[in-house]
Amino acid sequence: MTDTAQATGAQVAVTAANRVRRAHERGRYDRDFIYQVLDQSVLCHLGFVDDGQPVVTPTIHWRDGDWVYWHGANAARYIKASANALVCMTVTHLDGLVLARSAFHHSANYRSVMIQGQAQAVLNDDHKAAALEAMIEKIFPGRWDLLRPMNEGEFAGTTVIRMPIEIASAKSRTGGPIDDEEDYALPIWAGTVPIYTTFGAVEVDHRLLDNVPQPDHVNNLKDRLG
Amino acid sequence: MTDTAQATGAQVAVTAANRVRRAHERGRYDRDFIYQVLDQSVLCHLGFVDDGQPVVTPTIHWRDGDWVYWHGANAARYIKASANALVCMTVTHLDGLVLARSAFHHSANYRSVMIQGQAQAVLNDDHKAAALEAMIEKIFPGRWDLLRPMNEGEFAGTTVIRMPIEIASAKSRTGGPIDDEEDYALPIWAGTVPIYTTFGAVEVDHRLLDNVPQPDHVNNLKDRLG
Repeated sequence: MTDTAQATGAQVAVTAANRVRRAHERGRYDRDFIYQVLDQSVLCHLGFVDDGQPVVTPTIHWRDGDWVYWHGANAARYIKASANALVCMTVTHLDGLVLARSAFHHSANYRSVMIQGQAQAVLNDDHKAAALEAMIEKIFPGRWDLLRPMNEGEFAGTTVIRMPIEIASAKSRTGGPIDDEEDYALPIWAGTVPIYTTFGAVEVDHRLLDNVPQPDHVNNLKDRLG
Repeated sequence: MTDTAQATGAQVAVTAANRVRRAHERGRYDRDFIYQVLDQSVLCHLGFVDDGQPVVTPTIHWRDGDWVYWHGANAARYIKASANALVCMTVTHLDGLVLARSAFHHSANYRSVMIQGQAQAVLNDDHKAAALEAMIEKIFPGRWDLLRPMNEGEFAGTTVIRMPIEIASAKSRTGGPIDDEEDYALPIWAGTVPIYTTFGAVEVDHRLLDNVPQPDHVNNLKDRLG
């Protein structure tokens, strides 16, 4: 999943706009890590400002090269308010709960990416069509060609938006609790509870025709996401 | 977990500010459901505006009655920018991926809550102390009294912020794909892949003293979160 990213070995530029300030030792700017965090989740939280009010909408994102994309119905508020506006996309994996010997040192293990920037609606139809295909293919490789083709109404009613991965940073924490030295002598339970995203038994649609095999992109979801 | 909420049977007021517009049949305003979605996650995404730029920060939240709380170091940007400001807190559980016979009808199952409003820093020390205790107790019942007590520096360096659960709504989707009627005749695999949050094997801190039992609030996390 990180082949492309690892090949670049590049970092995003670190400026006042994206530098991690709190717990800055947890900040990371290498594109391979940023891309891995983005690619292993389909869920992002997209922030925008609507009439002065900050709004955070959960939606699906996908990455193509150095850009992140999202989409939705033309009429959706988060689409109207995020196209060609300043936005912030945040993707978070909660990897564990960390229990320390004092309340203060309790923590969470996580991997997160925050991308800020100017969003732009994808206006070129060829680009938009390619982006919608990429969305399906990134999540379910090989699925696009199996599907009933998109029709004109579906295409016209959908907006695709993207943002460059430039004003971006990752942040992560791993490992167990870090207590004050004198607290290690206290008989207080401490440790870490890992959290995983797991996939349950597939629920086949009750109207599925006979003899339609379950595709690999369903069987191996756990290899790509989590 | 929903005992209190179910006892209220109340709804938040539905106004232009919180009415779910897209897929409005998925919107819910009953406090019991809103509270359940909030209580079953420790992770929220908090949106605020910093110098005109929307920012979305992942952080821990907890609920006490009709209020949601968050906290952090006084100096953290998300604390400085969210105290006494307009914010949006969104909590999302991604429950599954829904594969339909057309790209357009692919979807996700989820439960989410969005709360908008005016945040307020908790300035009263007794209230702040009670809130920090509640944070630990909501996530790990019975843990507060086991811990090394909070000291003055920790208390003074921490800001607690809250927001009323008033301009709020929940949204959820469950079930399998809903395809165009004519597409059911196509030999295309369709179904749902459920997604779960699961807890891995507990990693005991390597400096834990002998004979300190693992508390129930660690053993039964899965009964409260997910």
